[in-house]
Amino acid sequence: MQYHTHPSPFPLENGGVLPQLTIGYHTFGVLNESRDNVIWVCHALTANSDVSDWWSGLYGPGNLFDPEKYFIVCANMIGSCYGSTGPRSIHPDTGKAYGMDFPLVSIRDIARAHALLFRHLDLAEIKLCIGGSCGGHQVLEMAFELPEKIRKMALLVCAARESAWAIAIHESQRMAIQADHTWTNDDDHGGQAGLRAARAIGLLSYRTIEAYRETQTDADEKMEHFRAASYMNYQGDKLVRRFNAQSYWQLTRILDTHNVGRGRGGVPAALGQLRMPAFVFSIQRDLLIPPYEQEVLAKYLPNAQFYSMDSIYGHDGFLIETEVLKRELASFLIS
Amino acid sequence: MQYHTHPSPFPLENGGVLPQLTIGYHTFGVLNESRDNVIWVCHALTANSDVSDWWSGLYGPGNLFDPEKYFIVCANMIGSCYGSTGPRSIHPDTGKAYGMDFPLVSIRDIARAHALLFRHLDLAEIKLCIGGSCGGHQVLEMAFELPEKIRKMALLVCAARESAWAIAIHESQRMAIQADHTWTNDDDHGGQAGLRAARAIGLLSYRTIEAYRETQTDADEKMEHFRAASYMNYQGDKLVRRFNAQSYWQLTRILDTHNVGRGRGGVPAALGQLRMPAFVFSIQRDLLIPPYEQEVLAKYLPNAQFYSMDSIYGHDGFLIETEVLKRELASFLIS
Repeated sequence: MQYHTHPSPFPLENGGVLPQLTIGYHTFGVLNESRDNVIWVCHALTANSDVSDWWSGLYGPGNLFDPEKYFIVCANMIGSCYGSTGPRSIHPDTGKAYGMDFPLVSIRDIARAHALLFRHLDLAEIKLCIGGSCGGHQVLEMAFELPEKIRKMALLVCAARESAWAIAIHESQRMAIQADHTWTNDDDHGGQAGLRAARAIGLLSYRTIEAYRETQTDADEKMEHFRAASYMNYQGDKLVRRFNAQSYWQLTRILDTHNVGRGRGGVPAALGQLRMPAFVFSIQRDLLIPPYEQEVLAKYLPNAQFYSMDSIYGHDGFLIETEVLKRELASFLIS
Repeated sequence: MQYHTHPSPFPLENGGVLPQLTIGYHTFGVLNESRDNVIWVCHALTANSDVSDWWSGLYGPGNLFDPEKYFIVCANMIGSCYGSTGPRSIHPDTGKAYGMDFPLVSIRDIARAHALLFRHLDLAEIKLCIGGSCGGHQVLEMAFELPEKIRKMALLVCAARESAWAIAIHESQRMAIQADHTWTNDDDHGGQAGLRAARAIGLLSYRTIEAYRETQTDADEKMEHFRAASYMNYQGDKLVRRFNAQSYWQLTRILDTHNVGRGRGGVPAALGQLRMPAFVFSIQRDLLIPPYEQEVLAKYLPNAQFYSMDSIYGHDGFLIETEVLKRELASFLIS
């Protein structure tokens, strides 16, 4: 992990300001002389900047994210707990963590932070800017920040704006975190019971009914201690070991700000400005950001190609269906 | 509301016992001389025995639940907080509420309690036994309890067994309640923040993506305080005013026990025993108990008629699409 610290306060779209901004990021491979062999990856909610770890199915020699060929960059989202400034970072004026004083950040603010890093690394252009879920939302906003620098973009299981449905899911997650009275504590381990529940809620939207049926169905005789229930607790515990409740709460608020149409005359007009080739990827059984949303992208982006597939993994399919993505994105890259 | 108190301890399927059992119930209309003009309604999760209130679209003179024609009975589920014995009832030995000592009850236990009430009321037969969601699960188990007494049954948006998916949803709801450390308090108002979140989670599964899009989408310029988020809080608050967290937690465990196949050689063999005519009703966009589940019922019940409709209301459609239900059930009743 590397860090870039922005030399001045970072103003935010909603009117707030971060007095200090640190961007945690990873790079893989070597930047070529013309500084243009760049793939920029944007991560989703609880991931981090180590794309070789969480998107390993696309990473490696001969693969899409080939470090022998490309200079691959991924920066941690503001608000997260994986290196960039977030609610558990120390506020320079108080010497204590921001905690509940962390301001509302938007997806656009994060895209602006990515653009700062782009300039700090002195990159000439981005061959492919790619992300899934809220990673795709960052890609869209980066396309507005760096319209002349992004050659192509890949938008996986994402939307032009956060839907009422996704906001409702996020609110139920925040309500679960808020039900845990320890979540506002000045403590990296506050709110863990709430975070466990929030993760369980999220998981329902990342998977499918059929995947639960196939993998979590018990024998007939049980009356309690069901496999599906253990699985939810297991996944909740797993996240709690690696994530922070205040970060999770803030990140879901950041997701909710996503709307490319804000201040740009609405979604169709805004998407109409993004003229670079776009690969729009949809999973038919995605419960969180369903195909309807990608159809909107494909309809209003002037230069979109649409790929739809079915996957029992639902929304999470963008992390798992890497054979399909590898093939389709390789052909999109050379097209 | 009337009450029937069972004169002896009530043994439970899982091995526990309720030292005392009270059944809260409503009746509407007049029992005829042959004591057979009976419609028995089973209620869902947070409803109560006043079917004229929560299923008003089917109730009234000239309607399906016609009190001038039928004697309509609805009993509150054990574990609930609307009149039947539940976790906030007083344990006769301690003089204090059961609270965390409330034993695991099953859908079969509740059906056995309904059968006790059937005998207490000295009914000859039930013309129609009807319920939606976990109300339908009780109807199925009543059909095993009173196979010679139930002439016809209507099974709306329900399943032969609780699915891994539904159990996962319930577990996330329980995790949210458990995140609120007040939920185990010996206090009728404990766990309210957790219950709010649990209700929000449930609501997601009762509605559809499209309903949120149509009714909860904001104007483009907003960055926070979204309508969809307010709606979740509003619905959470509404439930908190009328329900108890310990009851909710217990009821979701009761739902999870549902499996007509347990001890009966599996679902197909069990359903094969229920020979009375069954009306099986399915809503295509039901996210909680989707059509797959009703197809299983229609396939293995020997005498089923299957009706499927689309509704933007999703699972909750069984409470709202009463015009369709009224028409179809009227024709099912006279068939």
